[in-house]
Amino acid sequence: MFNQVTIIGLGLIGGSLGLAIRRKRLARRVIGVSRKPSTLRRATRIGAIDEGSTDLRRAVSGAELVILATPVDLIVSYAKRIAPWLQPGSLISDVGSTKATIVQALEHRLPRPVAFVGTHPLAGSERRGIDAASATLFDGSLCVVTKAAATNPQALARVRRLWSRIAGRAVVMSPREHDQALAAVSHLPHLVAFCLMGATNHGALMLAPRSFLDATRVAKSDPDLWDDIFLTNRIALARALRQFQRQLDRTKTLLSRADRAGLRRFLKHTHALRLTL
Amino acid sequence: MFNQVTIIGLGLIGGSLGLAIRRKRLARRVIGVSRKPSTLRRATRIGAIDEGSTDLRRAVSGAELVILATPVDLIVSYAKRIAPWLQPGSLISDVGSTKATIVQALEHRLPRPVAFVGTHPLAGSERRGIDAASATLFDGSLCVVTKAAATNPQALARVRRLWSRIAGRAVVMSPREHDQALAAVSHLPHLVAFCLMGATNHGALMLAPRSFLDATRVAKSDPDLWDDIFLTNRIALARALRQFQRQLDRTKTLLSRADRAGLRRFLKHTHALRLTL
Repeated sequence: MFNQVTIIGLGLIGGSLGLAIRRKRLARRVIGVSRKPSTLRRATRIGAIDEGSTDLRRAVSGAELVILATPVDLIVSYAKRIAPWLQPGSLISDVGSTKATIVQALEHRLPRPVAFVGTHPLAGSERRGIDAASATLFDGSLCVVTKAAATNPQALARVRRLWSRIAGRAVVMSPREHDQALAAVSHLPHLVAFCLMGATNHGALMLAPRSFLDATRVAKSDPDLWDDIFLTNRIALARALRQFQRQLDRTKTLLSRADRAGLRRFLKHTHALRLTL
Repeated sequence: MFNQVTIIGLGLIGGSLGLAIRRKRLARRVIGVSRKPSTLRRATRIGAIDEGSTDLRRAVSGAELVILATPVDLIVSYAKRIAPWLQPGSLISDVGSTKATIVQALEHRLPRPVAFVGTHPLAGSERRGIDAASATLFDGSLCVVTKAAATNPQALARVRRLWSRIAGRAVVMSPREHDQALAAVSHLPHLVAFCLMGATNHGALMLAPRSFLDATRVAKSDPDLWDDIFLTNRIALARALRQFQRQLDRTKTLLSRADRAGLRRFLKHTHALRLTL
């Protein structure tokens, strides 16, 4: 599908992406970029990349597609930096967890013949780094590919085809739709996990059953990664949080009134919704 | 340890308890009570009980220990009903998820020579019924045994010993301490799961990643069971809910101010707490 793909950032996602692209033969060559030579050596050894480099310019030159797999707050600056070094018709894509800020910042700001298409593969783990990378991380998962006003249709189609092959399903959404949905189904549950930990005293934690461990599992995720995600998507997240707080207030009222019928209706409704997933 | 143990209610917990007691030879005979003859047949077939009966009086007569494994809202009335049929020195215990209401209602209200000791084994599953019962459900888990002002010390010691053998660890707490801790680590995460479902629209649910599925897994639990638990423990639950809401409000403020340093401090703190579990 591609001659050369360059992946910038070889963490869990970048590394797994390299493994998947090479395993499925979706590119002739995969070049990896990391600031740490040890990461490049490790990525080469596990077969995530054909070749690694710490030199950004050298690594992107000749790439048909550059995928930015860095922390979200670095994506825009990297994209702007590399764009002038790419050949006309090249693509830049990213795998960041929030999309509106990134797409807005890049759509009209790149040199004309280079197209940007944002994506967000909905796969991950609370583990991170190249050592957690896996060729099957994206198997059976879903990837969101964003379409905004200025998105180049051919570029969108190519990136979408790539992700259909890697993840199985690729759906197209506007960056705003993506951010609102992700705020609700990913960023909010993460925030809730951190807040559950903050609200629970030491003695009670000793009794924590599986329900608590499951509900707070994602609080094991890297805080340095999540403060960026929360802040980049803070408008949509605040909205999802308000909706969630309304549900909490509603059940608090039902409890204070000991309204068994109302509580049961609410539980039955949300229980039935959960069974559809 | 016991001659005859009678278990009233043969669902997930009652059935697993019968299996564990028989497997570990902690009683000579285990009698089971259910309203459904099909449940009794199934419990006998899988080895959860030696004998089953739909006749409450016959089933408890001669029991040294009766364990109430019914839904929480039925425990008090069953205990009062069976107490007069028991021999002096017999024990009644329960496995209900909330303790203060039950212990208060029973401690001084049973005929003198029958002692009540409340317990709560911290093991379970979102599945229920005798078909989900397992001899290893309690392995490596923790059981809370409650000690209140009027708890008979010998009775407490016997029940505690039983649960040390079944679950591995049995800790003694006051009913109030138990309810506050459980409100925080079990009832609140359940309420949160139902509320996350209620707050998320249909389109977003389509994208639900593993973090969302984990955070809402317990919303698959039986609503008919959980409205009782929530209502029986509503004072402690409301308190835990307020503490949780304060954490949400705090992070909402950090987000609205885009306070990266404050947010990172909060995430690092709660992240470190989670790693201790």
